[in-house]
Amino acid sequence: MLFEKDFVKLIPLFKTKKTLRYVIKLYRDTVFSTEFGVIHHNEIIGKPSGSVISTHLGYKFIALKAELTDIVKSYKRFTYKTQIIYPRDWGLIVTFANIKNGSKIIEIGTGSGAFTAFLSRIVGPGGHIWSYEKEEERHKNAKKNLDELNLPNNYTLKLANAAEKIEETDVDVVFVDIPEPWTVISNSWRALKPGGVIVIYVPTVNQVKKAVTKLITDGFVNIRVIEGFLRDIQYKPYAIRPLMKGYFFSAYIIFARKSYVIPIDLYEETRKKIMD
Amino acid sequence: MLFEKDFVKLIPLFKTKKTLRYVIKLYRDTVFSTEFGVIHHNEIIGKPSGSVISTHLGYKFIALKAELTDIVKSYKRFTYKTQIIYPRDWGLIVTFANIKNGSKIIEIGTGSGAFTAFLSRIVGPGGHIWSYEKEEERHKNAKKNLDELNLPNNYTLKLANAAEKIEETDVDVVFVDIPEPWTVISNSWRALKPGGVIVIYVPTVNQVKKAVTKLITDGFVNIRVIEGFLRDIQYKPYAIRPLMKGYFFSAYIIFARKSYVIPIDLYEETRKKIMD
Amino acid sequence: MLFEKDFVKLIPLFKTKKTLRYVIKLYRDTVFSTEFGVIHHNEIIGKPSGSVISTHLGYKFIALKAELTDIVKSYKRFTYKTQIIYPRDWGLIVTFANIKNGSKIIEIGTGSGAFTAFLSRIVGPGGHIWSYEKEEERHKNAKKNLDELNLPNNYTLKLANAAEKIEETDVDVVFVDIPEPWTVISNSWRALKPGGVIVIYVPTVNQVKKAVTKLITDGFVNIRVIEGFLRDIQYKPYAIRPLMKGYFFSAYIIFARKSYVIPIDLYEETRKKIMD
Amino acid sequence: MLFEKDFVKLIPLFKTKKTLRYVIKLYRDTVFSTEFGVIHHNEIIGKPSGSVISTHLGYKFIALKAELTDIVKSYKRFTYKTQIIYPRDWGLIVTFANIKNGSKIIEIGTGSGAFTAFLSRIVGPGGHIWSYEKEEERHKNAKKNLDELNLPNNYTLKLANAAEKIEETDVDVVFVDIPEPWTVISNSWRALKPGGVIVIYVPTVNQVKKAVTKLITDGFVNIRVIEGFLRDIQYKPYAIRPLMKGYFFSAYIIFARKSYVIPIDLYEETRKKIMD
Repeated sequence: MLFEKDFVKLIPLFKTKKTLRYVIKLYRDTVFSTEFGVIHHNEIIGKPSGSVISTHLGYKFIALKAELTDIVKSYKRFTYKTQIIYPRDWGLIVTFANIKNGSKIIEIGTGSGAFTAFLSRIVGPGGHIWSYEKEEERHKNAKKNLDELNLPNNYTLKLANAAEKIEETDVDVVFVDIPEPWTVISNSWRALKPGGVIVIYVPTVNQVKKAVTKLITDGFVNIRVIEGFLRDIQYKPYAIRPLMKGYFFSAYIIFARKSYVIPIDLYEETRKKIMD
Repeated sequence: MLFEKDFVKLIPLFKTKKTLRYVIKLYRDTVFSTEFGVIHHNEIIGKPSGSVISTHLGYKFIALKAELTDIVKSYKRFTYKTQIIYPRDWGLIVTFANIKNGSKIIEIGTGSGAFTAFLSRIVGPGGHIWSYEKEEERHKNAKKNLDELNLPNNYTLKLANAAEKIEETDVDVVFVDIPEPWTVISNSWRALKPGGVIVIYVPTVNQVKKAVTKLITDGFVNIRVIEGFLRDIQYKPYAIRPLMKGYFFSAYIIFARKSYVIPIDLYEETRKKIMD
Repeated sequence: MLFEKDFVKLIPLFKTKKTLRYVIKLYRDTVFSTEFGVIHHNEIIGKPSGSVISTHLGYKFIALKAELTDIVKSYKRFTYKTQIIYPRDWGLIVTFANIKNGSKIIEIGTGSGAFTAFLSRIVGPGGHIWSYEKEEERHKNAKKNLDELNLPNNYTLKLANAAEKIEETDVDVVFVDIPEPWTVISNSWRALKPGGVIVIYVPTVNQVKKAVTKLITDGFVNIRVIEGFLRDIQYKPYAIRPLMKGYFFSAYIIFARKSYVIPIDLYEETRKKIMD
Repeated sequence: MLFEKDFVKLIPLFKTKKTLRYVIKLYRDTVFSTEFGVIHHNEIIGKPSGSVISTHLGYKFIALKAELTDIVKSYKRFTYKTQIIYPRDWGLIVTFANIKNGSKIIEIGTGSGAFTAFLSRIVGPGGHIWSYEKEEERHKNAKKNLDELNLPNNYTLKLANAAEKIEETDVDVVFVDIPEPWTVISNSWRALKPGGVIVIYVPTVNQVKKAVTKLITDGFVNIRVIEGFLRDIQYKPYAIRPLMKGYFFSAYIIFARKSYVIPIDLYEETRKKIMD
């Protein structure tokens, strides 16, 4: 059943030039104006998700409860000040950082808050996310975005510079999404529980190089660097093929684990050869 | 701190010809024999994750609490009767099927139980997984595997054929991993809550074609088909490059949502052209 | 040295919002008008490739002799009636079809003529391309395109339906780029020399299925199906990373070789299971 | 027709555990011993390519004239001292370096000679390849490999260090495949005709960075960096899907063109930011 304050995705039942998806939040006695006519929220509220609704001009849409990936992409009032963590990477991070119900996580670089929301819904009431952001404008924007989202009360947005100080200790995961991740690696080591996971999300190879060098010398082990991508398949049963064009890169994702040892071979080899 | 019954991953601090990872489960007064000498579990129990331990021959390893991805890959007593859902796909499914803390999920095709375990840790005590498997041998093997894993008590393994009957109703997600997914699509529709998500995991395009045709005619909308892959990057700071060889395909993943409408255009076009 | 009738690519030496490339053909006493001012062809003719030239408004460009890939992409008078064979696939075809100086090639589906031009330049005066096109409009358009290109006199454009008749025999390669490639496979077998290569270029998996089934039953062996893709790398030395977005699919490319045998296992297996 | 000195690829007409391909060179009165019995070359000589031949134990094979890609991969007497340029990259280089019948090419780093052979067959009798190799052992090995291959007489193998001196001038393309490509960029600029193309083939991003920085400051423009890969598709008509595992990286390929100008913006930006 679709209730007030639920997010709804509207999928047209007619042909449109480009793929069209509206995402709205339901409020009683409110209307939504489209180029195909007006939709009354009251007509959606109380219907089952997956029902058909109609504009005053007779254009028909399927109304589905919106998923988080829909909301962060298409809801007008969810706004961006920075590049986001792409939803296609969310899952890789959860899987390879061992994130689960109950995890305690520090996020450095709140950004828009989209990934914070995803984590909040995964870790549940037994977990917590502390999210650091040093730019006030972004911090406020993320707060506004997250207030919209009906999330569990398990996250704390902090206007603070993690390169200077991280207050939490014994956390399971530190996730870093800032342009200079090497500035927070030492503080992250201290904040993590023994064996805890650091995840670093960077778009360039130059950043990978500097971050990994710092990880090696700071006591992180079991380093892994990946890049993931996905292709959408045109699924018309009589003409199945990948789409021609799309995103084939988002970022490099670095994973490493807190340890009490610096593997000497890797360290020496790195020191010697890093002169280029 | 590493406790009895924890899983531990041992990473050598010396050069080996191939990447070497041991995963063991800790039991008091037990030894683990490797080609590099014997390790006493008692010496690991009580140490912080990330500590260094030594075989009786002096070979050193870092002992890290093992992640689920490590366990399903390298723990000797976690055994397979079928192809698994690859960990690199786990996250894509969670993200795009909107799975989160508290989700109610039906899995059709328990397989080895690895993905069941992943879901169990995500949905937490407020969620539940009902996992159908019609082959007794696989059902028992999955039970044995999952009993090892210290999971929350939120899953039910069922020896039953979902193509004949699904008992649960109003679930959030049905995940299908069997060779003939089209045989369970009608029952899945009935089991799902309005707007609920079906996810189908198949290796061949022929299966995509048959499954999607059935989804279209059975009242599912918002169909999406993707394939994901990831590349590991050699991260030595002085020689960064992707690895040369690896997995670049695992399966096609189909997502669709329960609705009360069959989009007539797509349906007619499919009926007309499917004659090839 | 840049001569009359050469193609020239103009690369701006100033910042533009989007990557800008002009491709022009040099004619004495002609001007080229851009939004940045007028360029006199006479000022380019006689200069070395790689020189700097200037518009009457003082905007500077590097003038490089244009490569074929530039011409088919950016020269205004090279026009398309159909999808092209992408340049990123040209080389895969040449490599895996064993095309070289002196090769005799039949092309079925002339299209715009871009790939015909590429082949013409590879096989040289000792080779030949016979290119079939059954649509008169496309045939004429390709002729017009190729007349522009200063190619060797080693190709023949034929307005004819290869599904009805192919006149040539003993050719090295048949390259097929039409929507229903299975209609020309028998005639291609007859046209090829023993062991000759057929190459089929199709965008959907449905077409792969039908084409391969026909190849198996028509006496082709050593079948291989590939898809290639390439990523552009942002090469700024201080921020190296793949571009985010681009083409990640163009077509499936099928290769097979004329033989005198039908491998019975593959044939029987295909007959039995093709019922889906 | 298969003649003496032709290369032949033998494809089994029976099931084998792994894909099996023999490549042999035909010599009269010679036998080839396999684990499935002996094959007499005389029985192949004079047969059409694509014929079936039999071992003395009755195992049947299809005998096809071998393609260059087969020979360099499977012919026992074609030997490697270094990593090769992968055939999947050969075509990208030909396409984007504008190589064709008649091209004059310098190759720096002969390696095994496989790519030299490919180029020799493309540029034909009107073109030429000068291939530099400074290691005597590699130079001799390449000579031995190429002598086997029935190539046109259009290449010169030079035992010389291109970083010290390149004698040729006015060539169309310089192709560089050595670990320190930046050491030959200045000499390559001098050897190229105006507007000529340099191609650099390197496996790591660190090398891309150094090579591109040198190209920018040495008068090369129109720089492009790509990486390509291809996937093989399992083509059984009833189970079409990409293979699971394979090569998804070979090398970065850098293209640039000789010019008489250093774009000042790019140069300054690079100088300023390259301090990392």
